[in-house]
Amino acid sequence: MAETILFDRIALIGIGLIGSSIARAILRGNLTQELAISDASPQHLSEAEKLELGHAYHTDPLEAVKNADLVILCTPVGTYREIGERIAPGLKAGAIVSDVGSVKEHVINALQDVLPAHVDFIPGHPISGTEKSGPVHGFAELFDNRYCILTPADDAAQLAVDRLKEFWEAIGSDVEIMDAKHHDLVLAITSHVPHLIAYNIVGTADDLESVTKSEVIKFSAGGFRDFTRIAASDPIMWRDVFLTNRDAVLEMLGRFLEDLSMLQRAVRDSDGDMLEGLFTRTRNIRRSIIDAGQETDAPDFGRAHHTERSEES
Amino acid sequence: MAETILFDRIALIGIGLIGSSIARAILRGNLTQELAISDASPQHLSEAEKLELGHAYHTDPLEAVKNADLVILCTPVGTYREIGERIAPGLKAGAIVSDVGSVKEHVINALQDVLPAHVDFIPGHPISGTEKSGPVHGFAELFDNRYCILTPADDAAQLAVDRLKEFWEAIGSDVEIMDAKHHDLVLAITSHVPHLIAYNIVGTADDLESVTKSEVIKFSAGGFRDFTRIAASDPIMWRDVFLTNRDAVLEMLGRFLEDLSMLQRAVRDSDGDMLEGLFTRTRNIRRSIIDAGQETDAPDFGRAHHTERSEES
Ligand SMILES: NC(=O)c1ccc[n+]([C@@H]2O[C@H](COP(=O)([O-])OP(=O)(O)OC[C@H]3O[C@@H](n4cnc5c(N)ncnc54)[C@H](OP(=O)(O)O)[C@@H]3O)[C@@H](O)[C@H]2O)c1
Ligand SMILES: NC(=O)c1ccc[n+]([C@@H]2O[C@H](COP(=O)([O-])OP(=O)(O)OC[C@H]3O[C@@H](n4cnc5c(N)ncnc54)[C@H](OP(=O)(O)O)[C@@H]3O)[C@@H](O)[C@H]2O)c1
Repeated sequence: MAETILFDRIALIGIGLIGSSIARAILRGNLTQELAISDASPQHLSEAEKLELGHAYHTDPLEAVKNADLVILCTPVGTYREIGERIAPGLKAGAIVSDVGSVKEHVINALQDVLPAHVDFIPGHPISGTEKSGPVHGFAELFDNRYCILTPADDAAQLAVDRLKEFWEAIGSDVEIMDAKHHDLVLAITSHVPHLIAYNIVGTADDLESVTKSEVIKFSAGGFRDFTRIAASDPIMWRDVFLTNRDAVLEMLGRFLEDLSMLQRAVRDSDGDMLEGLFTRTRNIRRSIIDAGQETDAPDFGRAHHTERSEES
Repeated sequence: MAETILFDRIALIGIGLIGSSIARAILRGNLTQELAISDASPQHLSEAEKLELGHAYHTDPLEAVKNADLVILCTPVGTYREIGERIAPGLKAGAIVSDVGSVKEHVINALQDVLPAHVDFIPGHPISGTEKSGPVHGFAELFDNRYCILTPADDAAQLAVDRLKEFWEAIGSDVEIMDAKHHDLVLAITSHVPHLIAYNIVGTADDLESVTKSEVIKFSAGGFRDFTRIAASDPIMWRDVFLTNRDAVLEMLGRFLEDLSMLQRAVRDSDGDMLEGLFTRTRNIRRSIIDAGQETDAPDFGRAHHTERSEES
């Protein structure tokens, strides 16, 4: 097993959904000799210890990063600068510092001038997650067959990029290298705006007077409940995403709204051809996503239809 | 088993996803002696026959409804009037005529003056479905533990309403009685507008020049892929929904857009408190939907994380 060791010592700062899933995938692959974990939440830290997700547990991230060859920040992006300042004095020369934040340009701006010059800073973002938070909800398979985007600076050390790439591949992912600004634009449309409109429609339904909350709940299987999944994602994490990827989100939201105006007009004008044309085109995109192995082909996401009734009775 | 027979003869017009699921649930429960099936698509009709979903198969709906005690229209709502005119001469006195259409006021307007006075017309709508179409994709459990809304007129025969209610309960559903206009408003927010915005964002992503289609597909696991599921629903069915529930859809879409303008403003102004407040509130609604048995509690809808990789390798 020892030949799979990629880094002698790894430190994870933040042991929530993503951090704990990385920890499990590291242990599954036997990728390190010593895994140090730090989290600001004493509860999450003790849950992680109970789950045996690492070898050492520290409230202070400075302790965790000491001697680490790879440090990954797995906290909401709004905390990065403060954590960066705290850990900077403890970082070993030659260490790789990375992260999993959903936004990249802001993260680079927040970290690059607080980290010492003797570390390699290679930002990352695994495109994988669930709506749950905290260490108990992580699992080793989260990154299997998913993409992880790395956004190294132009002058980043190639060896460090390669080592981090190898790490994510060992965790189950395909790695893509991308410019940070482009990452933020791509994710605005594939993740951030979808979350924004999901949060919005759930809020709208909650606010109506003409339709009761009980009706929204009972009849949610008509489509609404799909949106509640991503609208149940962590509020702090998502607040930070919108605070730090503002421009790209506003640009993509603008495009969405332009298109929605045309669709609204088509409904008003009873333009059946326009509606049918759009609804036919959108079918093909799902097909491509399924063919690319990024979505299940099971109807209704494979939601359990058979069991729900028996669970209740 | 004979004591579960609720109607001696049932006719289903349209044997797609919903019709074929009703057929399977009827057979599962042994709810009729003779099940007649009609569909305009010769392919679907012969698939239904191969799957043994009924006892008789007719291209002409007029043949299917002869002698039937219960007739259910399971075709796109835009076809109802034509089908109503066709079957009217063959309907037996005392028969119950119902439907499964996603819109109700329009359906009543389309059907009530073409159906003979000697039948009881009780409109219905099961709040259950998947993104797939056609008879091969139906399954008997589709309606288990889901709601079915009936929208009888004020002067509808109570006995007919009760018999149809008993039928849907035998099929696995809870039945709610509602005014047709109110139904259309409730479904506009719980189903129709969610579909419209899902279709819209998938269309927007498809149209972008700054982000390639390949990027949208690869990184869709960030949230976007959730929307592609309902945006893969049947184009004709959904075109008809928007053509026939226009006013309620435009009203609810207006509310959605008002709220989205405020959210857009909050992003622009970096109003973290507003964002965090909304994102916290929306979490609770999902909880209520899960508690009401209308959604799975499994993370990520219970999507298979473990199998996808091995399926590929
Ligand atoms: N969830 C996803 O789908 C997903 C996908 C890709 C990337 N990401 C990124 O992954 C990161 C973590 O997200 P997550 O879903 O894992 O969130 P999470 O489950 O809430 O975990 C975050 C953990 O970090 C802790 N924490 C917060 N502030 C801290 C600080 N200053 N110092 C140390 N620990 C701190 C949190 O404790 P408290 O709970 O007590 O605050 C929590 O234990 C975010 O940057 C997010 O953008 C998330
Ligand atoms: N899918 C859902 O989630 C859902 C949920 C609740 C209610 N509904 C309602 O259920 C109804 C059917 O939807 P579905 O999902 O079952 O659609 P579907 O799978 O496409 O099935 C509709 C069937 O009706 C056939 N058909 C079309 N026009 C016809 C005509 N004039 N005469 C006879 N047969 C005709 C279709 O044949 P072709 O394919 O050849 O046109 C198809 O076999 C719609 O009114 C819809 O609003 C759907």
